[in-house]
Amino acid sequence: MTNMRKLTAEMLGTYALVFAGTGAIIVNDVSGGAVSPIGIALTFGLIVLAMIYAVGEVSGAHLNPAVTIGFFAAKRISGYQVTGYIISQCAGAILASCTLQILFPMHGSLGATLPAGTPIQSFLLETILTFLLMFVILSVPCHSRENRHLAPLVVGAVITLEALFAGPVSGASMNPARSLAPAVVSLHFESLWIYLTAPVLGASASVLACRCVQESDCCRPVMSKKETCI
Amino acid sequence: MTNMRKLTAEMLGTYALVFAGTGAIIVNDVSGGAVSPIGIALTFGLIVLAMIYAVGEVSGAHLNPAVTIGFFAAKRISGYQVTGYIISQCAGAILASCTLQILFPMHGSLGATLPAGTPIQSFLLETILTFLLMFVILSVPCHSRENRHLAPLVVGAVITLEALFAGPVSGASMNPARSLAPAVVSLHFESLWIYLTAPVLGASASVLACRCVQESDCCRPVMSKKETCI
Amino acid sequence: MTNMRKLTAEMLGTYALVFAGTGAIIVNDVSGGAVSPIGIALTFGLIVLAMIYAVGEVSGAHLNPAVTIGFFAAKRISGYQVTGYIISQCAGAILASCTLQILFPMHGSLGATLPAGTPIQSFLLETILTFLLMFVILSVPCHSRENRHLAPLVVGAVITLEALFAGPVSGASMNPARSLAPAVVSLHFESLWIYLTAPVLGASASVLACRCVQESDCCRPVMSKKETCI
Amino acid sequence: MTNMRKLTAEMLGTYALVFAGTGAIIVNDVSGGAVSPIGIALTFGLIVLAMIYAVGEVSGAHLNPAVTIGFFAAKRISGYQVTGYIISQCAGAILASCTLQILFPMHGSLGATLPAGTPIQSFLLETILTFLLMFVILSVPCHSRENRHLAPLVVGAVITLEALFAGPVSGASMNPARSLAPAVVSLHFESLWIYLTAPVLGASASVLACRCVQESDCCRPVMSKKETCI
Repeated sequence: MTNMRKLTAEMLGTYALVFAGTGAIIVNDVSGGAVSPIGIALTFGLIVLAMIYAVGEVSGAHLNPAVTIGFFAAKRISGYQVTGYIISQCAGAILASCTLQILFPMHGSLGATLPAGTPIQSFLLETILTFLLMFVILSVPCHSRENRHLAPLVVGAVITLEALFAGPVSGASMNPARSLAPAVVSLHFESLWIYLTAPVLGASASVLACRCVQESDCCRPVMSKKETCI
Repeated sequence: MTNMRKLTAEMLGTYALVFAGTGAIIVNDVSGGAVSPIGIALTFGLIVLAMIYAVGEVSGAHLNPAVTIGFFAAKRISGYQVTGYIISQCAGAILASCTLQILFPMHGSLGATLPAGTPIQSFLLETILTFLLMFVILSVPCHSRENRHLAPLVVGAVITLEALFAGPVSGASMNPARSLAPAVVSLHFESLWIYLTAPVLGASASVLACRCVQESDCCRPVMSKKETCI
Repeated sequence: MTNMRKLTAEMLGTYALVFAGTGAIIVNDVSGGAVSPIGIALTFGLIVLAMIYAVGEVSGAHLNPAVTIGFFAAKRISGYQVTGYIISQCAGAILASCTLQILFPMHGSLGATLPAGTPIQSFLLETILTFLLMFVILSVPCHSRENRHLAPLVVGAVITLEALFAGPVSGASMNPARSLAPAVVSLHFESLWIYLTAPVLGASASVLACRCVQESDCCRPVMSKKETCI
Repeated sequence: MTNMRKLTAEMLGTYALVFAGTGAIIVNDVSGGAVSPIGIALTFGLIVLAMIYAVGEVSGAHLNPAVTIGFFAAKRISGYQVTGYIISQCAGAILASCTLQILFPMHGSLGATLPAGTPIQSFLLETILTFLLMFVILSVPCHSRENRHLAPLVVGAVITLEALFAGPVSGASMNPARSLAPAVVSLHFESLWIYLTAPVLGASASVLACRCVQESDCCRPVMSKKETCI
């Protein structure tokens, strides 16, 4: 039952993230730009902030398969849990894209992510964006109890700023579920591979960076605390 | 007397919300767009944040009949209190619309909410918006004491983001009092039914979602804590 | 000496407020709108937030003669202190306008406030804006210790939102020192009386509202706690 | 080893700051203004906020040679550490500019800072901006433990507001490493001297201001606490 609560929390949280975030892109399109790029970036950042505060103490509020895999790489969740989390996140995301399809039946791509330039540029950018995001997710709660309670705010800030500056280049997905859902529901699969692979690569790499910088056990299993990075 | 303080708090808080929020819409109209959609969304979010911090420990700072009914559905306030709260909220909201009528006598609709598309689209959207808002209001204070003190900030974030992305479609009311007041004072009643019903539906539904996700007693009466959602 | 620290804190804090805030208006003018109305509102709100965190525990960080008079009306500072505070605030503000005059010698009005519509409209608006601001300043720290530490953030939020929605009408001064300094240095005294009187009226009135809503001693002298508003 | 962690933290933090901040300027150029001046200012402020929360308890998260020299002037770090910190910050910043050069090979100046008006105007402005920034950095953690945990948020707010209002004039660098890196990688050295000297001057001067205002030992060595400013 407790596990059921966690999966429901991940599904509902990712639903809210994709509904509001890609909803902002869609409404911006249908309203002739009334949301604006800053409004889209703020929507993504603030919904993540709100959902981590709402369900973070239930499931950890990953809301993102790349983050779940990052926590697995940091040995902070078990392989058994990873599958359930990812399925719940994708289910929530797809449900959100279906809702948006019903609300805005004339919109084509439902907020799918596409590279504005070359695929390799967006691949590299998404990797670095998710690297920085996961580094913050792992690092902020490392230290004091007060910081742990402000972590959702900091994660929301990172989502906002990365969406602000990288949105016009790669869409600033950092999240395979967020990119998968509109692609599946609108049947636009071009460049989807970038958004399924780069965030996972970036999130996994940041575990090493965290181990080099942080002394506490926030990015390594408690028992094997070492002095070296790896 | 203590109850009198609560009702005064709800009236003053809702006055501030409608004065600043619909004031932003009116000033944007009369100044040729100087506030902008982002400015309107920030005004709504920040005034709610500020008013919850100012009067939240007096009355709970619902400032919204749908939220009051949601707390009643969660059995966290009594039916007796509901009526007084809703009357105070509507009185504060109408007083705010009257003040704006005096300040801006040439403005027509005083910031009333209207669907940009079909009524059913706005009805569905307002239901989901208020569902997510009430889910956050119920969930954030569920856990630690620190989270309880950050809850007004998170609620303000949700108001901001929902006004940002849904404002151009339905007006992002989520609040029957906020829609009633400009309609009554400017005598524009078209589509008002959407904003009186959808938020109440969404807020009530989110009590069930909260019970599925949260284990604590934040969305159920303390004595009847159960393992199942309903 | 301790009193000297307080007056230095008020002077430095008000210097920062007027330098950044009216600086934003001036830079927006000389750069062809690169700051934008939202940028100006955020600058005012964030500098107040920062300065209250920086010097709030030294002097209370009023940074505003109307706020100082409001605290006097709430009997929370002595008449003896009021004069020193107001002189320090005006000195800091005038010093900031002089710095801006040196940096931008070709700019005319140095960010002075002027009503966009009728004087009576701006007078009424400034009164209500300062009423709400002072109500929040008095109310937020009333309750828990955590809220006291978030109060500067909430006050910054109110400054931001009021500058956002009321800036295009009255300039959203809420602060006699902020309006006096550019008027004195640029020798533009039209409508200055509005910004010297309305904020004081609004701040004083909000002490009564605070007494009606809050039970604690945050807006009344500790010894005379009463059940009634006045 | 512990020192190695500190230098890695400074390098990674400054990498993130320059990558996101100057990245925002570059993306704004290549996308025809999709980031906007407000988006650039928010990116700078939020990445600083996030990085201080992520590595602040490891290295102090200076991320800025002027801040490091300011802490040295306040006798809060040793001369031995200053060199290592500044080298790490510059290395991180240059690495970020190299990454941006790879991602955006056609962009010329990589977000280098240039005065819009006279050099002396930008010199004076950068001095005051860094003075206010360092004053906040020194002052906010002076008092209670809660304030210490909110300090990164306040520093991020100051970066945001100063970038908002001063960005169109001087670029609002406040940071020699942030200006050095794009200049070195893109080989644009005009006016670089302003951004290497003014922030150091401003940060050092603010130590005196802090000693005049704050009674605690946050801007003076613990043993020599005095009643006078200097």
